[in-house]
Parts: sequence; structure tokens; C-alpha cells
Amino acid sequence: MSTPSSTQIHLASRPIGWPTDANFSTVTVELPELSEGEIRVANEFISVDPYMRGRMNDTKSYSAPYALNEVMTGGAVGRVVESRAEGFNVGDPVLHQLGWRDVAQGDASHFRVVKDIPGLPLSAYLGILGMTAFTAYVGLLEIAGLRNGETVFISGAAGAVGSAAGQIARLKGAKRVIGSAGSAAKVELLTEKYGYDAAFNYKDGPVREQLRAAAPEGIDVYFDNVGGEHLEAALDSFNPGGRGALCGAISVYNATEAPAGPRNMSNMITRGLNLKGFTVGNYAEHYPAFMADMSEWIAQGKIVFDETVVEGLDHSVEALIDLMRGANTGKMVVKL
Amino acid sequence: MSTPSSTQIHLASRPIGWPTDANFSTVTVELPELSEGEIRVANEFISVDPYMRGRMNDTKSYSAPYALNEVMTGGAVGRVVESRAEGFNVGDPVLHQLGWRDVAQGDASHFRVVKDIPGLPLSAYLGILGMTAFTAYVGLLEIAGLRNGETVFISGAAGAVGSAAGQIARLKGAKRVIGSAGSAAKVELLTEKYGYDAAFNYKDGPVREQLRAAAPEGIDVYFDNVGGEHLEAALDSFNPGGRGALCGAISVYNATEAPAGPRNMSNMITRGLNLKGFTVGNYAEHYPAFMADMSEWIAQGKIVFDETVVEGLDHSVEALIDLMRGANTGKMVVKL
Repeated sequence: MSTPSSTQIHLASRPIGWPTDANFSTVTVELPELSEGEIRVANEFISVDPYMRGRMNDTKSYSAPYALNEVMTGGAVGRVVESRAEGFNVGDPVLHQLGWRDVAQGDASHFRVVKDIPGLPLSAYLGILGMTAFTAYVGLLEIAGLRNGETVFISGAAGAVGSAAGQIARLKGAKRVIGSAGSAAKVELLTEKYGYDAAFNYKDGPVREQLRAAAPEGIDVYFDNVGGEHLEAALDSFNPGGRGALCGAISVYNATEAPAGPRNMSNMITRGLNLKGFTVGNYAEHYPAFMADMSEWIAQGKIVFDETVVEGLDHSVEALIDLMRGANTGKMVVKL
Repeated sequence: MSTPSSTQIHLASRPIGWPTDANFSTVTVELPELSEGEIRVANEFISVDPYMRGRMNDTKSYSAPYALNEVMTGGAVGRVVESRAEGFNVGDPVLHQLGWRDVAQGDASHFRVVKDIPGLPLSAYLGILGMTAFTAYVGLLEIAGLRNGETVFISGAAGAVGSAAGQIARLKGAKRVIGSAGSAAKVELLTEKYGYDAAFNYKDGPVREQLRAAAPEGIDVYFDNVGGEHLEAALDSFNPGGRGALCGAISVYNATEAPAGPRNMSNMITRGLNLKGFTVGNYAEHYPAFMADMSEWIAQGKIVFDETVVEGLDHSVEALIDLMRGANTGKMVVKL
């Protein structure tokens, strides 16, 4: 029997602006035999997410920056191939945060056994049953405090977070849900598949004008995945007492100069607005409520979702760059 | 006996950029005899406040814009000179919102009898016992949720709101209070009189750098009276979980072009920050708590305050412009 090994993607240098292949290296390491309490997992899907770009910078943030010459960590799902830990059997599907590698190995405490759900790929635990949909849930309900009958605007609406957010908003009582995306095909998906009442392509014209046209009576809640011009447009359209959940700012992640900020911040005073930034890791106590709601919605056929699947660990960097360019619809994952 | 009259300042046209005398007119009207339930008041002090500039614009805001060719309304204190209303006796001091006029008359429901407090001018009801100090109290405690041991930054710190806010922050348990103002004399007042731990003149250099130097361990709460560069600096210095109370944006009130916005809004996401705009009128339920605290602090000599007094109704416009230029220390009032 050959020595087991793990092929991994490491961060080799910190990108300035857009990442390129040169910022990463592929490393294969031999794996030791399992110690007591450890398991070995063959990954099936790894997650690529916009927040990973921020972790490549060496700046103060909610999570430590990625270390140079270490694995790009993040969500992944696979199956146990060898186990010396109680409760983990060969073949069990598991979720973990050990990231961009084909084989993950370590103490069983790093892994959580999940259920195979008929009709759902294991990758659902990275998306509609995982971090991205949970982010949408927390942002709408805990951060923005969505109330019955309100009008909600969601930017980046065809992504993993946005497509979940639109549907959750509706299921939790929003009166009108408006989304923006970056192509005509995505805009069509928003209204035809994800249940948005109105949608626009932000590349078609000023966001401020398109949002005003889509929400002539103003918006009450804004779920921000984009930042920049979108945030300014939301501040323009907010009704008094409006709340914004700031989740992402993909429009500025790769900027090499400080981006322009919203020029209408004083609307926050005159209209009594609240903007709150968040990262879902600080809201783990709401995970059981999310799983209860989402499992029921999926079982009842009330939620749809898409995935964009890229094949092969060696295309992970390309998948991340494509994600930041908006090439994906729904959750972007790499299949191994 | 001559017919009683009231001399009033009206808004004659909406200013573009800085207001000038040409935007106002002085009108004297004859007053009818009192009807049952009405009183007549000789004003002693009228309030000039930064929010008044916003009300001169014809835009959607928390309070209706000033009507053209009507009195500039706002806080004022005076004494009853004639009464046909129960509970109002000649000589009683009263507070009201009828604004820039020497004599105010109308239904007694528009007026509230206040107490003469030994050692305090009646104008205190416009400042340290009135709207401006109440604004500081609500912003720190209700909007920003100040907690014991936190570091607080206050911009416009030598004004009526800021000078109260610094002292309230300390009395409510802040560990360190930092203020900015626009002259060396004001900066000295902040540390020598109002109890600030550190202060700087924002005209001396970039606010971001001066704030970092004054708060090397970061800030937890920001009370914003200024907006613009100050808000960007606060977003730079916020610790994780920081909260900003957005009260005013005097740096942009007279701007004729959209001001630059903060270029670091994405810090809100990575650090889990919360910014909330407010106008004190929506928080009236906290007024009894404010009056209880403030009356006790004043009686115990724990609060100091300044007033900048301009003489004569016909200098009201000049007083307002001076206020927006930062010519005042503490509360700006016009004495009649």
C-alpha cells in the first residue's frame, strides 16, 4: 500500500489587487499514520468564497490573515476514508474548515458528521444548508431585523448569499423583494426562479436610478454584498428607520486605491438609519434556528438553489477569481 | 395702550450653499387679543442650532422643511406677559418651539412652564437642560450603547452637544474620552474644563492620524457631529464591535457638491461595526431619565457648560452662520 498523501493549495504571496496563479503554490505532502482520535477524509467539494480575498491581506480583521506557505483554509465536505475516532465510520460524510486540499486529516474535533439527504449533493452543506445561506438568514433577521410587510433590496442577488436571501426574505414576510445582479441572464433568474419581485442589471445604468425605479416607495431593509455605488444607492432609497446589513463589499475587495465612499451618509441622520456590519461566525447561536427553518423549507420545496461547479483542485484559484468577477450563479464550489 | 406686535425672522428663500441675509426677512405683525386658553410670551433667548440649516432645504427629512415666508421656528425661552390660560401666570418662565420672534403668542399647549433655577440663566433650557444636552445623552446611551470602561471619540467636541457629551461619557463610565475641535483655544477648553483626556485641532493635520495618536488602543464609541473626514477617521480607529452615533454632519451642511464619503466602509463588515443615525425627537421617552441625571449632576457641580450669547433678534442669521463656522463655544443663543 502506497503512503497516503495530500495535495494542497498554499498562499505563496499576498496579492496586490486581483490575485493571480503566481500568488499560490501546489504542494503535496505525505501523511503520517493516524493517531488515536484522528480521521482521514477524502474531500468531495471545497468552498470558494469572497471573504477569502480579505484573508489574503495582512490586515486587522475578524479572522486572522492566511499565513504564507500554509493551506488556504475554508469550508469543505468529504467522506471518511480511515478512522481511529469514535463516531466516525468509513463512508460518513463530514464538513470541516481545513480547506483547499484533496485529503484532510487530523483530530476528529475538526470534523462534523452531516447527513446524506436524498436529492441533495453533499455540496449543499457549503451553500443552502451551510455558511452562505446561514449568512443570509442572520443578516436579514438578526442584523437588519426584517419585519412583516417591508421592502427589501439585496445586491449581488444571484450569488450564494443573495439567492438565499431573496427567498428567505419572502418566506419571512417581506412585501417586496428587489435584487441587482451583473448580467441579463442573472436578472431573469432572480425574477423567474428565486422569486424576486423586481430586479435590474447594475451594468445597465446608475444603481441609484435603477433602484428608485424598482422601489418607488423606498426600501426598508438593504442586504449589502457589494458595497460602493450600491450602498450609496440604498442610502438614497431608504425610508425612515431603514436598516442595512453589511455583509460583503465585493466591488472593492480587489481595489488597489481607496474606493469612493457613499456621499450621502447624512441621510443616516435625517432618516434615522442603521447600518450594521457582520460576519456570521459571531452569530453561531442562531444556527439551530436556521437549520430548522431551512430543512423544513427544503423538504416543502419552498427553496431553490443553484451551484456553479468547477472541476479539479488545480482550478481552485481560477474558481475564486471567477467568483469575484461574478461568473457564478449561486454557490461556487470546486469538485474534486 | 398700543397694539401689541411681534417682530419675526422669516425664511424668504432657500439658500444654496451658505445662507446669507438675503435669504431672510424681518416682519412685524400686529397681534390679536388673546382668546381663551392662550398666552403671550416675551422671549428672552432663542436657540440657533445646526439642524436648522437642513430644514432650509426642500428635501425629505425627519421634520418638514421650513415654509417660505414663515417664521424660523425652533427652541426659545421667555416669560408670560399676559395669560388667559390656567396654570400660566404673568412672569412664569416658559419653553416653546415657536422660534425666531420677540413675542410669541398662541394656545397654551405650545408652551411648557419651566423652573427658575438659582444660578442658571433661562437659556440653560436650550442647552445643558435642553435639546442639545439631551441629544448628547441619547446618542451616547441609547444609540451607541456606551458601556463602562470604553474609549469614546467625540467630534465637534466644544459645541453645545459635544461639550455635554464628553462630560456625560465620563460620568457614565467611559475610560477615556477624546475630542476634536477647530481651534487651539477650544482644544485647551476640552482638556482643561470639560474633562476630556485628549483633544486635537482637526485643522492641524489629517484627522485619521491625529485620532490614531490620541487613541492608540482604538475607539469603541464615536459620537459624530461633523461627518466627512471625521467619520472616515473613526471607521479607521474603531475596535471590533464599535458603535457610532451619527448626530450631525456640520462639515457638509453647506456643501453645494456631494461630499466625499468614507472610503473605508468595509471596515464595518470585518470589525462588526454599527452606525446609527438619530434625531432626538424620536427618543422623547428618555427625557425624564435625562432630566433626573442632569439635574443631579448640575446640583452636585459635576457638569460645566458654556454659552455664546449674541444680542438682538436682528443678529439671529449672523449667529446661525457663525455657529456653522464654529465661532461658538458651547451653546449658541440669541438674547433679546
